[in-house]
Amino acid sequence: MTQKWEQIASGKRAKLAEQFPPEYRIPRDLLPPEDQLNVTTFPQQSGWFSGQELEITKSSASQVLQKIASKTWSAEEVTKAFCKRAAAAHQLTNCLTDFFPAEAIAHAKSLDEHLQKTGKLIGPLHGLPISFKDNFNIVGKDSTLGFTSLVGKPATYNATLVDLLEKLGAIRYCKTNVPTAMMIAESVNNTFGRTLNPLNRKLTSGGSSGGESALIAFGGSCLGIGTDIGGSLRIPAACTGIFTLRPSSGRLTIQACASGLAGQEAVMSVNGPMARTLEDMQMYCKAVVGAQPWLLDPKCLPIPWRPVERKNKLKIAVMWNDGIALPTPPVTRALKETVEKLKRAGHDIVEWDPSLHAQGLSILERLFVADGGKSVKKLLAPTDEPFRPEMLPYKEATEVGTYDMWQLHLERSAFQKKYLDQWSSVGDLDAILAPTTPFSSVEHTQLQYVGYTGVYNIVDYSAVSFPCGVTADKEKDRPVANYTPLSDHCQKVYQSYNAELVHGMPVSLQLVAKRLEEEKVLDMTSAVLKAISTPSPLKSRL
Amino acid sequence: MTQKWEQIASGKRAKLAEQFPPEYRIPRDLLPPEDQLNVTTFPQQSGWFSGQELEITKSSASQVLQKIASKTWSAEEVTKAFCKRAAAAHQLTNCLTDFFPAEAIAHAKSLDEHLQKTGKLIGPLHGLPISFKDNFNIVGKDSTLGFTSLVGKPATYNATLVDLLEKLGAIRYCKTNVPTAMMIAESVNNTFGRTLNPLNRKLTSGGSSGGESALIAFGGSCLGIGTDIGGSLRIPAACTGIFTLRPSSGRLTIQACASGLAGQEAVMSVNGPMARTLEDMQMYCKAVVGAQPWLLDPKCLPIPWRPVERKNKLKIAVMWNDGIALPTPPVTRALKETVEKLKRAGHDIVEWDPSLHAQGLSILERLFVADGGKSVKKLLAPTDEPFRPEMLPYKEATEVGTYDMWQLHLERSAFQKKYLDQWSSVGDLDAILAPTTPFSSVEHTQLQYVGYTGVYNIVDYSAVSFPCGVTADKEKDRPVANYTPLSDHCQKVYQSYNAELVHGMPVSLQLVAKRLEEEKVLDMTSAVLKAISTPSPLKSRL
Repeated sequence: MTQKWEQIASGKRAKLAEQFPPEYRIPRDLLPPEDQLNVTTFPQQSGWFSGQELEITKSSASQVLQKIASKTWSAEEVTKAFCKRAAAAHQLTNCLTDFFPAEAIAHAKSLDEHLQKTGKLIGPLHGLPISFKDNFNIVGKDSTLGFTSLVGKPATYNATLVDLLEKLGAIRYCKTNVPTAMMIAESVNNTFGRTLNPLNRKLTSGGSSGGESALIAFGGSCLGIGTDIGGSLRIPAACTGIFTLRPSSGRLTIQACASGLAGQEAVMSVNGPMARTLEDMQMYCKAVVGAQPWLLDPKCLPIPWRPVERKNKLKIAVMWNDGIALPTPPVTRALKETVEKLKRAGHDIVEWDPSLHAQGLSILERLFVADGGKSVKKLLAPTDEPFRPEMLPYKEATEVGTYDMWQLHLERSAFQKKYLDQWSSVGDLDAILAPTTPFSSVEHTQLQYVGYTGVYNIVDYSAVSFPCGVTADKEKDRPVANYTPLSDHCQKVYQSYNAELVHGMPVSLQLVAKRLEEEKVLDMTSAVLKAISTPSPLKSRL
Repeated sequence: MTQKWEQIASGKRAKLAEQFPPEYRIPRDLLPPEDQLNVTTFPQQSGWFSGQELEITKSSASQVLQKIASKTWSAEEVTKAFCKRAAAAHQLTNCLTDFFPAEAIAHAKSLDEHLQKTGKLIGPLHGLPISFKDNFNIVGKDSTLGFTSLVGKPATYNATLVDLLEKLGAIRYCKTNVPTAMMIAESVNNTFGRTLNPLNRKLTSGGSSGGESALIAFGGSCLGIGTDIGGSLRIPAACTGIFTLRPSSGRLTIQACASGLAGQEAVMSVNGPMARTLEDMQMYCKAVVGAQPWLLDPKCLPIPWRPVERKNKLKIAVMWNDGIALPTPPVTRALKETVEKLKRAGHDIVEWDPSLHAQGLSILERLFVADGGKSVKKLLAPTDEPFRPEMLPYKEATEVGTYDMWQLHLERSAFQKKYLDQWSSVGDLDAILAPTTPFSSVEHTQLQYVGYTGVYNIVDYSAVSFPCGVTADKEKDRPVANYTPLSDHCQKVYQSYNAELVHGMPVSLQLVAKRLEEEKVLDMTSAVLKAISTPSPLKSRL
C-alpha cells in the first residue's frame, strides 16, 4: 500500500512535471539513453538548442549583463534561453524543485521595457536570471527542504535576499533540489528523489546545494545561490567543478530562508554564490553588499565591499590531509600539482598542521543533533515520512539541555581561539589551501565525509572552492598500495574510491582566508588561478 | 553557627582589608561619620590628600595621559594618587574586590624608566591606571563574581583585554565589586557585601558594574572597564552620573573573562569603558580598536575605528517611557528639559513608539534562566551558599531543552527584525533618546527594573549613557498625583520613589544608535552635550 507521504511526493513530482510547458520538454527522440553518464554534451550535440541559446547559456553572468546592457540580447531572450536549458538540466539530472518560466519571462519583458523607455538599467543585475536553492522563500512557492509535510505550503513572504536581488534587477525562474533538511552531503530526499551529476550521472552532484551545482554545471544557470552550514556550497561545487564562495556569517543575508534546523545558531548557516567563473562571484558580492543588506537584516554587518591590496607573494599553508580522512588519489595529486605551480609562481608555501580538525569535526557533529533531532522529527511526523538512512544520527540523537549546550558553546569558542592562534603563529599567513572534499566526486550514497569543509563553518572563515584544472585520471590515480586508514572515516573514503568511474572528473580545492575576508579570499583565488594558468574547465566544456 | 560560606566570605574580606597598606588607610579621626550620605566631598575636604593628588585624580584620562607624556607627572605619581583615592573609595563605599598597589607602582616605575631611557611612550595609554570589574581575569587574582566557591581560585590566565591594555601602556591596580553572577542590577553578593553610592550612601551605585561606578564617581579611577548584558554598564553609570558606552558585540573583546552564565550566547555580554568624560571613552575605544583585537579574539569583528561625518541636524526619536514602567519624576523632567534643549539647538525630534518593548523584556527574562539556573546553582553548591533573594528567578527556573531554545532564538531574531524595521520606518533616524533607567538612583534593594537597557542588549545596539545635567529636585519632582500604574513593574518603580532621598542626584539618559555604530553614537552624544551645554556634573564636583 502506498503511504501518505509517498502519495504526497508523487503528487508533487507530477505537479512539478506539469510546470514544464511542451516547448521545454526534450523531444523523446533526442533524449540521451539512460546509461549515458555525461549529459553536459547534450545541449551542444542534440541540435535542440539554437546558436543564440547556446551562446547565451555558455556565457558568464558578467558577459550576460554586458550583452543586455548593450542591448545585444534582450532580458527576454536571455531568460528564455536559460529556462530552456534549465528544463533540459532537470529532465536529465532531476535538479529542480520548482520552475516558473512564464513569470520569469514576464519579468524579463518588463525590464526590457524599462530599459527601452528610460535608457537606464534597473540595477547592476538587470535582466540576469538567478537560480535559488529550494530553501529561499519565494511568495507562492513551496520551500519543502525535501519534506513531504511542507508540500503545498507556499511561502507567504520572500527571503530578504530574494527581494534584494529583484531590486538589483535579477530574474528568478527556478528553485533547486536539496537533501532532507539540507543536512546530507548529497541532494536526495523523499519528495523529489535524487539529483544526478550531469558530468557523470552515476556520481553525486554533492549537497546540500546539489540541485544548484548540477544546474550550473549543465549550463542551466550561470549564477545560483546556495547555502552552507557544513560544506553545503563547497561540496556540490567541488563535485561538479564550479566555483563558490562560503562567506563568513553576516556578509550576505540569510534572513527569512527556510531551515531544517531553524533557530540553531551555534554554527551559523550562510549563503553564497555558485558560478562558473570567479569574476561572477566578485561581481555578485559587490552588488549584494553594495545594496547594504544590514539595513534590512539585523544579522548583517555594516561592512562595505572593501578594496584589496594584492600581494605579489602570498603565504599559503597547505593542508595535505586533515588527519582524519586521506583524500582520494586524484585529489592528493591535484593538490600536489597545484602546490608545485604556486611555488613556481613565487608564492611562499608552508604546511598546515591539521591536529585541531578532529575536535572541530566532533563539535560540529554534536551541534547539529543537539535538539535530539526534534526539528527533523517534527517535519517528518505530520505525514509519517520515514527517516532516510543518511539521517539516522537525527533519529538516534538525545536532546541536550541548555546548560550542556552552553558548555558546548564554550568548547566551540575555545576551538575558534585555538585555530586563530595557530593561524597567527605561522606569521603573515594569507591562506590555507586544502582539499574541498576527499573526492573529485563519488558514487551516490558514498559522500558522507564533510570534515574538510565543516571545520571552517565552526571557525566561520571565508573560503572559495575552485576547480584547480586537474581531472581524475585512472592511470595516474591508482589506489594507494600499502594503505593504512587513519580512521573509520578514512576507510570508508578509501573504499568508495572507484578510479574507473571518476575518470575525467574535475578536482576542486578550497582556499581559506580568515573570518570576514571575503574580498581577500576571492582576490587570492584569482592569484592562484593565474599561477595554475587554468581557464575554468567548465567554461570550455559548455 | 557560622556556615562554611560565611567563613570563606569573612576570610576573604579580611584578606582584602590586609591588601590596604597603612599609608592607604584613612586615619580614624578623618573618617566621615557613618550617617554622612555624600562622601564624594571627602578627598577635597578631609585634608588627607595633597594638592597634587587631588589635581591628578580629578583629571580626565586624556589629561592624565597628556601630563605623563609631557613628563609633568610621572606614571608613578599618577598611580600612587589613584591608588590612594581608590583606597579611600573602598573604605567609604565597599567598591573593590582586589587591590594591588605595589604591583601597579612597580609597573608605573618601569614605564617611567622606559620613557626616560627611550624618550618614547610604550603605547597610547602609557601610564594610565585603569580599573577592572571583578570578572576580568588577571593572573594570580580571584574572579569570584561574588561567589564564595570561587574565593581562593586565582586566575591562571589574563583576559584578552587585560593583556591588550597592558601592551597599550595601561596600569592595573584594582578590581571592582559586582553582584552575584553579575545578574543583579545592584552590586551586592555574599562574599563582599554591598557597594554604596558615594553620592548618597543610602542609594545604590547600580549593577552589575557598580563597584566601577562607585569608584569612578568618587574619583578613585578616571577610566574603568565594566560589562553589560542587560544594562550592567549603563545602570551603574546612570546611578552615579558618569559616562559609559555599551558597544555592540564584537568591537571590544570580552574573551577569557569570567561569567556567571558562561557559554550563554543568545544575548551576548559586551564590555565597555566607564569614565567621567565622553572624550575619554572616545580615546579609549580608538586605542583598543586600533590594536586590532580581531587578531586575538575570533569573536571580534575586523572593523577599524571609523571617522564619522557629523550632521548638523540630528533626527532623534524620544522614548518618553517604555510602555511598561514609567520613569520616576526626575527622569521624566530631565528628558523633557533635554528634548527642549535639543529642539532649540535645531535637532529634529520625533517620538518612538515603545510597543515592542514588552516582548523584548519577556525574551530577555527567559534567556537568562534558560539553563534552569544550573550555572548559578553549580557555583553556589560547593560552599552551600544560599541564593540571595534577588536571584530567586534562577532558583525557581526550569531548564529549557535545546529545541525550545532554538525556538527562542527565532523569537529573538524576529524581534530584532521588527525593531530594525521600526527604526527604518521613521526615515533617516539617527538615534533614540530614552531614560537609561526609571531612576536617578534608588534605595538599596529597589533597583529591579532593567527594561530600558535590556531591550538594547537583545537588538545589540550601541548606546551611550550620559549625565544630562539635570539633578533630582524634591520640589520640582513631586510624585504624580493621579498615578495609574502601567504594570506591576511600574507600581514597584513608583513605590520606590523617594523624592527626599534622591534630591540632588544626577539624572542620566541613554542615546541609542544602531548595531555597530559606536563611533556615531559617541559623536552624537557630543552633539547632544553641546546642545544641553552641560559640563560633566561630576567633573565640577571632584
